[in-house]
Amino acid sequence: MAVFFVTTGTVSNALAVSAISPPSRAVFCHDNAHLIDSECGAPEFFTNGGKLVGIAGPAGKMDPQALASRLQQFPPDVARQVQPGALSISQATESGTVYRPSEIRSIADLAHGAGMSVHMDGARFANAVAALDTAPAEITWKAGIDVLSLGATKNGALACEAIVFFDMSKAADFAFRRKKGGQTLSKGRFLGAQMTAYLADDHWLDLARHANRAAERLAARLAEMPTVRLPWATEANVVFATLPRGMDAALRAAGARYHLWDAKCLLPADRPADDEVLVRFICSFGTADADIDTLTDLIRQYSA
Amino acid sequence: MAVFFVTTGTVSNALAVSAISPPSRAVFCHDNAHLIDSECGAPEFFTNGGKLVGIAGPAGKMDPQALASRLQQFPPDVARQVQPGALSISQATESGTVYRPSEIRSIADLAHGAGMSVHMDGARFANAVAALDTAPAEITWKAGIDVLSLGATKNGALACEAIVFFDMSKAADFAFRRKKGGQTLSKGRFLGAQMTAYLADDHWLDLARHANRAAERLAARLAEMPTVRLPWATEANVVFATLPRGMDAALRAAGARYHLWDAKCLLPADRPADDEVLVRFICSFGTADADIDTLTDLIRQYSA
Amino acid sequence: MAVFFVTTGTVSNALAVSAISPPSRAVFCHDNAHLIDSECGAPEFFTNGGKLVGIAGPAGKMDPQALASRLQQFPPDVARQVQPGALSISQATESGTVYRPSEIRSIADLAHGAGMSVHMDGARFANAVAALDTAPAEITWKAGIDVLSLGATKNGALACEAIVFFDMSKAADFAFRRKKGGQTLSKGRFLGAQMTAYLADDHWLDLARHANRAAERLAARLAEMPTVRLPWATEANVVFATLPRGMDAALRAAGARYHLWDAKCLLPADRPADDEVLVRFICSFGTADADIDTLTDLIRQYSA
Amino acid sequence: MAVFFVTTGTVSNALAVSAISPPSRAVFCHDNAHLIDSECGAPEFFTNGGKLVGIAGPAGKMDPQALASRLQQFPPDVARQVQPGALSISQATESGTVYRPSEIRSIADLAHGAGMSVHMDGARFANAVAALDTAPAEITWKAGIDVLSLGATKNGALACEAIVFFDMSKAADFAFRRKKGGQTLSKGRFLGAQMTAYLADDHWLDLARHANRAAERLAARLAEMPTVRLPWATEANVVFATLPRGMDAALRAAGARYHLWDAKCLLPADRPADDEVLVRFICSFGTADADIDTLTDLIRQYSA
Repeated sequence: MAVFFVTTGTVSNALAVSAISPPSRAVFCHDNAHLIDSECGAPEFFTNGGKLVGIAGPAGKMDPQALASRLQQFPPDVARQVQPGALSISQATESGTVYRPSEIRSIADLAHGAGMSVHMDGARFANAVAALDTAPAEITWKAGIDVLSLGATKNGALACEAIVFFDMSKAADFAFRRKKGGQTLSKGRFLGAQMTAYLADDHWLDLARHANRAAERLAARLAEMPTVRLPWATEANVVFATLPRGMDAALRAAGARYHLWDAKCLLPADRPADDEVLVRFICSFGTADADIDTLTDLIRQYSA
Repeated sequence: MAVFFVTTGTVSNALAVSAISPPSRAVFCHDNAHLIDSECGAPEFFTNGGKLVGIAGPAGKMDPQALASRLQQFPPDVARQVQPGALSISQATESGTVYRPSEIRSIADLAHGAGMSVHMDGARFANAVAALDTAPAEITWKAGIDVLSLGATKNGALACEAIVFFDMSKAADFAFRRKKGGQTLSKGRFLGAQMTAYLADDHWLDLARHANRAAERLAARLAEMPTVRLPWATEANVVFATLPRGMDAALRAAGARYHLWDAKCLLPADRPADDEVLVRFICSFGTADADIDTLTDLIRQYSA
Repeated sequence: MAVFFVTTGTVSNALAVSAISPPSRAVFCHDNAHLIDSECGAPEFFTNGGKLVGIAGPAGKMDPQALASRLQQFPPDVARQVQPGALSISQATESGTVYRPSEIRSIADLAHGAGMSVHMDGARFANAVAALDTAPAEITWKAGIDVLSLGATKNGALACEAIVFFDMSKAADFAFRRKKGGQTLSKGRFLGAQMTAYLADDHWLDLARHANRAAERLAARLAEMPTVRLPWATEANVVFATLPRGMDAALRAAGARYHLWDAKCLLPADRPADDEVLVRFICSFGTADADIDTLTDLIRQYSA
Repeated sequence: MAVFFVTTGTVSNALAVSAISPPSRAVFCHDNAHLIDSECGAPEFFTNGGKLVGIAGPAGKMDPQALASRLQQFPPDVARQVQPGALSISQATESGTVYRPSEIRSIADLAHGAGMSVHMDGARFANAVAALDTAPAEITWKAGIDVLSLGATKNGALACEAIVFFDMSKAADFAFRRKKGGQTLSKGRFLGAQMTAYLADDHWLDLARHANRAAERLAARLAEMPTVRLPWATEANVVFATLPRGMDAALRAAGARYHLWDAKCLLPADRPADDEVLVRFICSFGTADADIDTLTDLIRQYSA
């Protein structure tokens, strides 16, 4: 195992993928992955022109069937399309769901079969471990993950992400790659210090459990509201819900802050009606029960 | 106007787009464009990590509504997604259809409004000009095209494509870009000689008219077959058709050569049934009436 | 003026230069610049294949004559060599010397005349300002600098560098470029906090003055030693000296830590003899007078 | 052995080197190699940001001592400088001299020892083979060359260069790399046809022998002129000479065409005086004895 610290989630994903995918290859990820539409071209840049290829799947999880079918459009013997380069999945997903070990294994097997290594975007990895109550190894190298971007920033750190290579051979020249990527800090001890404190005494898992419980509480309350719909089970610290537009406006007017979300991540049958919006609530290590209650009291008011 | 010769269609598209799109931007093209899935990463490479974004539309033509809607996911003021870089359309399209001047104009206006220049992949430009019986200017600079990749190779040349800049300012450093791209021939006169002969006395249009007529003849015959379906009007030198699998096997056994095509380019309602395939026939300057007749006689035999 | 924070000096230089130099251009810097041989290809990477071109000059300063002469090998009208892209100088230099405003102006004029913008690597900018006792403007925009990489890390910060654009038009898409470069922190306030404290009440200059005085004290003592030579005047916080090999070994044995340096940065006449080495001492905000004295007492011992 | 055809010498070198050097590495070549200053950034572009590092050596040949010494500045264990990526030598050299097999072997051994593969720029390969009267294998794979750019264009072809991999494993994904580089011709048979005719019946060597003999004749005549100096032995089809400025002006006025050359390729002692210039004469398969005689008669006139 080889571990390297960097300062942002974007560069953690981009550098990790670049280490396992040669230039100008296809990088497969979920249709709604952070990698494909929220990192401003960083994956394309760090992989020297990689092509991000989105794979569909419900609730933020890549569908192995869809992956298998898409891979057939990248034949190894015809120089028309780029070759497969790497595959990346997010754990927990962008939809706040969590891959089970067997789900990871079936995707990783397909990727390895196509000659690709597998990356895990673990910006919310602590939340996934807490949710599954399992050992990290069970959802990483034992399930076929070759390199993990282990996030700490979203879950409490100042600015620290770790790139963890389970396959040491992939890390052979990574010190050079990190330096070239502008991520070798002259006072790197300040990254190490963050990670040391983060992992000590299961602090990271305590923080994640707190956030997950807050999300669970929020989801349970929302499920009781007649005009609110939850498109999938809340498994980590993120809650998605369809709200009436009037309720959304009232919540914002009252000071609530959350994200409007693109409904393309929902199955057509689940998409919001014209007078509804899809929103995303994120719970963190710092979310208090009282905050949840204030929000849901407000929602109840507008949910007649 | 500035004109540069290169040796392949792939590099003609990739270099032309790279000249109008800064690095790491979105390059919009039709879902089924050659640029997005048949050029092996060349557009991503030459644009220094551009992101190819496919836009849907029937019969190979980009739908302006779909484009307008997609552009909204690339807001100019939020550094999450890459910025719009360039737009490219194919004339004639990959589906063998031809954009009318007003169709080009409406797409170009949207692109220009989003700060993008517009490229035309004219690998089959002669066929489009012949089909519309119009002046080249009407479907290029007068309709909003900023740079044209004018193909000659498919329509008779040995290996010669021209990149035509209507906006001279875009060509300012193109001599350097072409050299860097490995396309500055020491004996460039042999490219110029091809293009001179190609354009003289409307030779290029004569060749294209011949190919278009052959396609028209083929399409007309196919339209008479009860078990064959044509998904859209044949306008240039390319004919698409849905054939029974048995007929396809028999034609190949008899020596016919054409391409199996991915049915994702069809609207769901038009897609082949399980016992059918979608195929593409290309007619060229060298296609003889007798060839068409031999093929359609065979098809008729199997079309009971 | 537009200011962006990043986390390392390497990426501060590389991103700043990439913002002013189109892809695949020549980037001129001093022969011994950090940019050309200590950043592991980051400048080449962020500039999409830029070619770093070293210019000679005594004491770490670029010689305007040498620059003018080298520029003639990059003619604007012949596509054989890349075009000029950007010029970068370091202030204070890698040799610990400081450019005067008129020296900067003469180099910047040559660069601008060749169509290039000018970057200043200000990893030791505070030391230069303190040394010259001048306003920062006098050695930046008023002298022709277009973009400054203002360092704070070497002079006390945890990890914070600012990229300062004096020409706003160069910063137009920089938020996107920074995000793509993996340098947009989700908790960016922790960078801002560092810079706020750094600049408040001239704290940055107090720290730099301390370091410069320490270097001055060290240089003065070294100048008294018969077997030690200083190749140029010590102007900021860095001291270079030629030491006998025996002295070097003894100092290290006694626990002293400093850098062996490549003598190619010296004029041939100043290069160390076979039984000598060139070394670099860096003084910082934390260097105590007692440290200097301990070191120089040791040196005196071995300087008979 | 695997062979791929492309259309220009620039892209032949750049693609071949990119196949053996990972992104962002150092590419070593002679100080005056075509690769480093005449290919407009193509090597940097195709190698995704490679750093071209020039190595000195007399008469256009890389000096093994200089190479060994330079390699020490690229330590494998410190992520400050890029890592060694590939080495390229030209045969015949840019100076018209020819490496002997043992010279190639000593350079290749150093490169291999540093983990690099070795490329040969064979734009004038035929001239070298003809000059040495040896088997091509003796100066390529038997001497440590891993990939050869075999030129045909300068020696008679329309536009055809072959990239020859002696180590098949380096060619594993080259079909994709060539396509991405815009060099996969749809009518590739027209490249194959050129090479077939070129190589048949030793035609390529006959052409090269003719050019070499012309250069030998020219050099012999020049050597007789009192005011003309030849800096090194003429071994292939290129002749360098120092001429009085007046003679140069007179020759040009009389219609002679040749290149003024940068004197930095000469040892300081050999450089032209203020009233002299260095020039390069190229002889080709088409140079007639009468042309040589006309030129040298003119020179004699001005060589009093």
